[in-house]
Amino acid sequence: MERLPGFRDFFPRPLPQKNQWEFEARLHLFAAWRRVLAVYGFKEYDGPPVEPLELFTKKSGREIVGQLYNFDDKGGRAVALRPEMTPTLARMVATHERQYKKPIKWFSIPQLFRYERQQKGRLREHFQLNADIVGEAGVEADAELIALLIDVLRALGLGSDDFVIHLSSREAWQAFFREHGGSGTDEYEFFQIVDKLERTPEETAAVKLDKIGVPLEAVRRFITEGELTSQLKIVLKNLRARGIDQFVKIDYGVIRGLAYYTGIVFEAFDRRGEFRAIAGGGRYDKLVELISDAKTDLPALGFGMGDVVLLELLRSRDLLPKGASSVDVYCLIEDEALRSDSLNLIQGLRDAGFRVDYSLVALKSNKQFCQAMDMGASFTATLVPGEQLTVRLKSLADRKEETVAVVDCVAVLKRRLAESHGD
Amino acid sequence: MERLPGFRDFFPRPLPQKNQWEFEARLHLFAAWRRVLAVYGFKEYDGPPVEPLELFTKKSGREIVGQLYNFDDKGGRAVALRPEMTPTLARMVATHERQYKKPIKWFSIPQLFRYERQQKGRLREHFQLNADIVGEAGVEADAELIALLIDVLRALGLGSDDFVIHLSSREAWQAFFREHGGSGTDEYEFFQIVDKLERTPEETAAVKLDKIGVPLEAVRRFITEGELTSQLKIVLKNLRARGIDQFVKIDYGVIRGLAYYTGIVFEAFDRRGEFRAIAGGGRYDKLVELISDAKTDLPALGFGMGDVVLLELLRSRDLLPKGASSVDVYCLIEDEALRSDSLNLIQGLRDAGFRVDYSLVALKSNKQFCQAMDMGASFTATLVPGEQLTVRLKSLADRKEETVAVVDCVAVLKRRLAESHGD
Repeated sequence: MERLPGFRDFFPRPLPQKNQWEFEARLHLFAAWRRVLAVYGFKEYDGPPVEPLELFTKKSGREIVGQLYNFDDKGGRAVALRPEMTPTLARMVATHERQYKKPIKWFSIPQLFRYERQQKGRLREHFQLNADIVGEAGVEADAELIALLIDVLRALGLGSDDFVIHLSSREAWQAFFREHGGSGTDEYEFFQIVDKLERTPEETAAVKLDKIGVPLEAVRRFITEGELTSQLKIVLKNLRARGIDQFVKIDYGVIRGLAYYTGIVFEAFDRRGEFRAIAGGGRYDKLVELISDAKTDLPALGFGMGDVVLLELLRSRDLLPKGASSVDVYCLIEDEALRSDSLNLIQGLRDAGFRVDYSLVALKSNKQFCQAMDMGASFTATLVPGEQLTVRLKSLADRKEETVAVVDCVAVLKRRLAESHGD
Repeated sequence: MERLPGFRDFFPRPLPQKNQWEFEARLHLFAAWRRVLAVYGFKEYDGPPVEPLELFTKKSGREIVGQLYNFDDKGGRAVALRPEMTPTLARMVATHERQYKKPIKWFSIPQLFRYERQQKGRLREHFQLNADIVGEAGVEADAELIALLIDVLRALGLGSDDFVIHLSSREAWQAFFREHGGSGTDEYEFFQIVDKLERTPEETAAVKLDKIGVPLEAVRRFITEGELTSQLKIVLKNLRARGIDQFVKIDYGVIRGLAYYTGIVFEAFDRRGEFRAIAGGGRYDKLVELISDAKTDLPALGFGMGDVVLLELLRSRDLLPKGASSVDVYCLIEDEALRSDSLNLIQGLRDAGFRVDYSLVALKSNKQFCQAMDMGASFTATLVPGEQLTVRLKSLADRKEETVAVVDCVAVLKRRLAESHGD
C-alpha cells in the first residue's frame, strides 16, 4: 500500500534509493533552527495541526481558500489541516497576551498542509520554521527579525555568496497605489498582480493593471527606481551596525502574496537563482486584532522558512552532515556462557550514557566484529573470563587494545572517547 | 475563535492559567526519549500524518474503526489522520527492508489522532514514542525492548517505586483458549473480553465468555495461576542479568486490545495506580506481512508510550524541569548614541553562541535592568564610552562587575559562564 501523493516518508540511513528525505537531515535542520532562535531569545510553542476552517478563510486573503486541505469532521465541523501557523499564533497570543511581557518573541516548527491541484513532485505537506515578534511597533523589531533570518541561514553554513534577503515595503506600495488613484477595493488584487509580475506575460499584466487604472510602466519604474522608505533606511543602518548588511538588498519587486502584510516585507533567495524562495515574511500589524474576538490590538511581524527548498539548497551545496558514528561501543559476546554477564556490562555502559549495541543472537565472533565495523562503532568491548572477569577494549580507529577491570570500564571509555574526539 | 475540542496548545513559560501543556515539558520528554533510544542504537524515522484509510482498517482489528479521524479528501480518497504508527512503519519497512541490516531498530515520535465520542477532557491527539525491532524472531529481542522501555522511564527520573511493567503472553492466552475448546473465529472477541475484564461487571463478563464457551472462573484462575511460558522465563532471566528485573512483574491480566499481537505483550503502569497505562506493546510477527503487498515475512515487536499520561505522572512526581535561565547576556543600552555599537557587540556575542537579549526600543536604564532580571539573565553587558569603547560585565548572581575590552568580551564571558555553571 502506497503513501498518499504529496506526502513524505523520512528514512534513517542508509537512505533507500530514489528517496531524498532523510530523517537525520531534518533533525539537523531543526536543531540549527532551535539553536539560533534560542540565541535570539525566542521561545518555542505549538498549536493543533487541525483548526476550524474559519480561522484560515476569515481575513487571510482569497488566495488561500483554494489551497486548503479542508474537510468536515465527524461532528460536522468545517475544519482544515493548518496551511500556515500565523493564525494559530494570533489566536494563542490574543487569548493570553496579558500573561506575557512584550515583545513576545515566539517560534514554532509546525508541519503545514495544502491541497492544490496535484503537480508532479509538488508536496502537500512541509515543515516550516515560524518566528514572530508580537507587541512591538518600532522598526528596530523588523531589523532584529531580519538579522535572525540571516543568522539562521548562516548557522547552516550558507554565506553571502549563497543567499540574499530581498527587502521591500508594503507601505511604499500602498502609497504608490494611492498616488496612482487606486481604490481600496482593488488594493489586494493589485498586490497580487505585482506579486506574480515576473511569472505573468507582459500583455496579461498590462491588461490586468489597466483595469484597476495603474500603468504597467509606472509599476516597473517603481520597482527599479522607487525611493527607500524611512523605515527601510533604519533597517539598513541597523544591519550595517551589526556587520551583516551584505546579506540584504532592496527589491520592490517583492510584495508578498498574503493580504495581511502592512509594513516591511522580505524574501530570502539563493544567489544563483536555482530555487524558489527560501523564506519570506514581514509585518502584519492588524492580524492579531482581526483573528481575536477580543479585539486586541497588537502589532506583529514574522517570517516562515520551509524545510523543502532549504534542504534542497543545503544538499546542492554539500552542507548536510555526513553520517557520524552512532555507536560508541559494540559489545562482542564471544562465549554464549558470558551472555548474562555481557548484558550486565551493557546495562552499566548504557546507564553511563554510552551508545551501546550488540548481537541479540548467538553469532560467530568474526561476524559480530563485522557488525561493529558496519555500524562504525568507536570501540568493541569483550568480556574475558579469568579469576575475575575483565573487559578487553579495542579502538576500531587504531586497533589499539587494553584490558581493564569491569569496574573501571566506564571511566576508561570516557577518557578514551574524549581523546579520540580530540584527535 | 477557539481551537477544536480535544486539541492542545503548547505555550512557552510563564504558562497561562488553566493551561497545563507547556512546550518546554514536551521538549524535555522528547529529548529524554531521543537520548535513551540513541543509547540503545535505535534510529529515528517519520511518515505522513495522513494515510490511506485502508492502511488502518485492513487487519488492525475491528476496535480501531470507530475511533478513526477519517474523511474523504478533495481527490475522493478515503484517508485518515494516523491513529497509530505501526502500520506506517510496516509499510516503510516492507518497501525498503532489503536496504537495511537486520535487526532494524527504529523509533519515531508521531502525533496521533482519534475521533471517539467526545468525553470531557478526553484528547483527540497525542504524541507517542514508538520503538520497534523488526527482523529478529528470538525472544532476546523482547527482553531488549523491555529493557529499553524501563530505561526510558528511568531516564525521566522515575524509579521502581514509581512504575512497573506488567508482562504477559498472547501465546499463553492462545494456548489457554484452544485448551478450552475456543474456536478461531471467536479468538479476537475473547481477547477483547479479557482485555476489558477489570472494567466489566462480573455478570456481563460471565455471559459474554459463556457465549464462546469459556468459563469466567477458568479465565480468572489462569490470570492468577497461569504458568510462565518458556519465553517469559528467558525474558526474566535476561532482565535479571541486567539488574533491572525489579521493574517488571508477570500479570496475565494484560493481553492488549489490538488484534495483531502474537507473543509477549506488556504494559507499564504507575505503582500507585493513579493513572491509565503509561506504555504498552508486544510482539506482532505477522503484521509486516499483512500490510505489505510484497508478502515480506518479517517478525517484529514494539511499544508505544504517549505523552499525556507520562507528563501527568512526571508533573505529579515533580519531575519536570524548573525554568532554567534562557538568557546568558542582557545588553544594556544606556546611551542611545551607542545603539549601533551595541548592536555590533550583540551580533558578536550571538555569533559566539551566547543567548543574548536587549531592548528593541529606547528605555530607561533601570527598566532595562529589570527586564534583564525578569528574564533571569546571567550577565548584563554595557558599552562604556571612552578613548576606546569598553564593556562593563555584571554577574546578576553575585553583582560582581568587571570592565573588559570589546575584543576580550567573548573570551571573558565564556570563562565566567563556565565558572558560574561550576558553582
